[in-house]
Amino acid sequence: MPFDAYLQQCQQRLQTALPNRLDQPYSEFSDHNANEHLARLFEASHYSLMNGGKRVRATLVYATAQALQADIDDTVLDSIACAIELIHAYSLVHDDLPAMDDDDLRRGKPTCHIAYDEATAILVGDGLQSRAFELIAELQLPAQRCLAMVKQMAAASGPRGMVGGQAIDLASVNRTLDLHTLQTMHQLKTGALIRAAIGLSALACGASTQQQQHLDTYGKAIGLAFQVQDDILDIEGDTATLGKTQGADVSLNKPTFPSLLGLDGAKDLARQLHTQAVAALDGFGSHGDALHQLSNYIIERQH
Amino acid sequence: MPFDAYLQQCQQRLQTALPNRLDQPYSEFSDHNANEHLARLFEASHYSLMNGGKRVRATLVYATAQALQADIDDTVLDSIACAIELIHAYSLVHDDLPAMDDDDLRRGKPTCHIAYDEATAILVGDGLQSRAFELIAELQLPAQRCLAMVKQMAAASGPRGMVGGQAIDLASVNRTLDLHTLQTMHQLKTGALIRAAIGLSALACGASTQQQQHLDTYGKAIGLAFQVQDDILDIEGDTATLGKTQGADVSLNKPTFPSLLGLDGAKDLARQLHTQAVAALDGFGSHGDALHQLSNYIIERQH
Repeated sequence: MPFDAYLQQCQQRLQTALPNRLDQPYSEFSDHNANEHLARLFEASHYSLMNGGKRVRATLVYATAQALQADIDDTVLDSIACAIELIHAYSLVHDDLPAMDDDDLRRGKPTCHIAYDEATAILVGDGLQSRAFELIAELQLPAQRCLAMVKQMAAASGPRGMVGGQAIDLASVNRTLDLHTLQTMHQLKTGALIRAAIGLSALACGASTQQQQHLDTYGKAIGLAFQVQDDILDIEGDTATLGKTQGADVSLNKPTFPSLLGLDGAKDLARQLHTQAVAALDGFGSHGDALHQLSNYIIERQH
Repeated sequence: MPFDAYLQQCQQRLQTALPNRLDQPYSEFSDHNANEHLARLFEASHYSLMNGGKRVRATLVYATAQALQADIDDTVLDSIACAIELIHAYSLVHDDLPAMDDDDLRRGKPTCHIAYDEATAILVGDGLQSRAFELIAELQLPAQRCLAMVKQMAAASGPRGMVGGQAIDLASVNRTLDLHTLQTMHQLKTGALIRAAIGLSALACGASTQQQQHLDTYGKAIGLAFQVQDDILDIEGDTATLGKTQGADVSLNKPTFPSLLGLDGAKDLARQLHTQAVAALDGFGSHGDALHQLSNYIIERQH
């Protein structure tokens, strides 16, 4: 992947994104005993956020700003990348819970409820979500823009976005989904937050409506391609490379793109989506190279 | 309780606060099948939000505006009240989960994970939280004010607020807490959101810094009084009146104010906090009557 410098920067920002003591806004409560009781929550939150990951969403934030040649402070992009990764991390922590996907491993490491406990994992997810909104509200940008970003992130992560996609996913175990509904599920579950990563960055950069539309077309295509490739890897990959149990979705009898389209059909779809994504970048010329490379990466990745 | 008209208004707003179909922002996904799969999530969210409740936090939003004699649109107050109640509802849904307090009953009705299932309850909570932030971001108010409200609500509900309080609560089962840490726990778990209800309303109304401070002093006192009274009722009340299993906290070996101070000591503390709350309202004259009455209600209520 490109953007090593950006990624390193984002990782550094993530390191300090979470509170680790009671201080602001309720400094009168910063007593030693309370902090001792909170240590587990803070530690588990940090663990879940820093638990590896490809940081594709964070990278999209930087690459979008690059496509727009935006004159924007890097620290602003860092915080946006961070907020999106916080939402993503919270969704993984909750998604891994026994009542949900019941996954013990995530990126080769014990999931939050295994490393800590279920109650802590529930609270970790809840806290990561509110912290994401706090980061956007604290951005050094015109208030109107920040507010539009809060709105878009809330919509993308809520019941008509990511949470809705997860609900369809749960409802679909042991059932057949038609292709359209399967696509809807993934556009919500994975696509909405990927589009939000791009959309928030575009809002922060002051993109025109037309630029926002092209970028959203790109985001919609790669969001779905990402999931199609995930399904393909779930069949072709092995546990060591994936860091999760291979064939997990198949064994849960969840509908997948290969199960509806066959493996070759799924690969064709991934390529089509890549073509759509690249076409949407036409107007950005060479500044869109980073986004182009990300689309390449998404359909070529092996894990 | 006073404010019947306000409460009715707030209830009406709550009725339409949640999406019940896929439409905005991803209208291209509004296919029939996906909505069928989402019906359970939408229904469970609505169920959890409308599951009775005293709506103390919503009432505080209106009473604060009254104290400030604010010239503010009722629909704005409705949405703020609604956002705060959404955060409160999400916290109850997650708090009731088997891995947390494992409660089957809430206000005399089956809790969300009993009426539906655990996975749905996790997603319901997640979705209620993001919807709360969306409501604040959509307010018809100057962007700067909305943003300050997002910031305050995020801080109050996050790891240094409500979520942190729940983490201390969990960590305290079967352990002794000193009085200071017990107070900190409740100031975070219950107090932070009560203060946010008042604080967001004050921000929306354009209160002066001094007014905000007095109102926050009031909020801090009644927030703690509310919990002290809850502990007292947990000993004195019965299941039919409370709508939850009486003595639940005692049977979990959770530290309570009566267990540290004795029943009479806890009652003294509740009265002291009431006195503090009322004193903080001095400057508001008769406009603060509604807030005064709410403080009366909190220490006099029997459920």
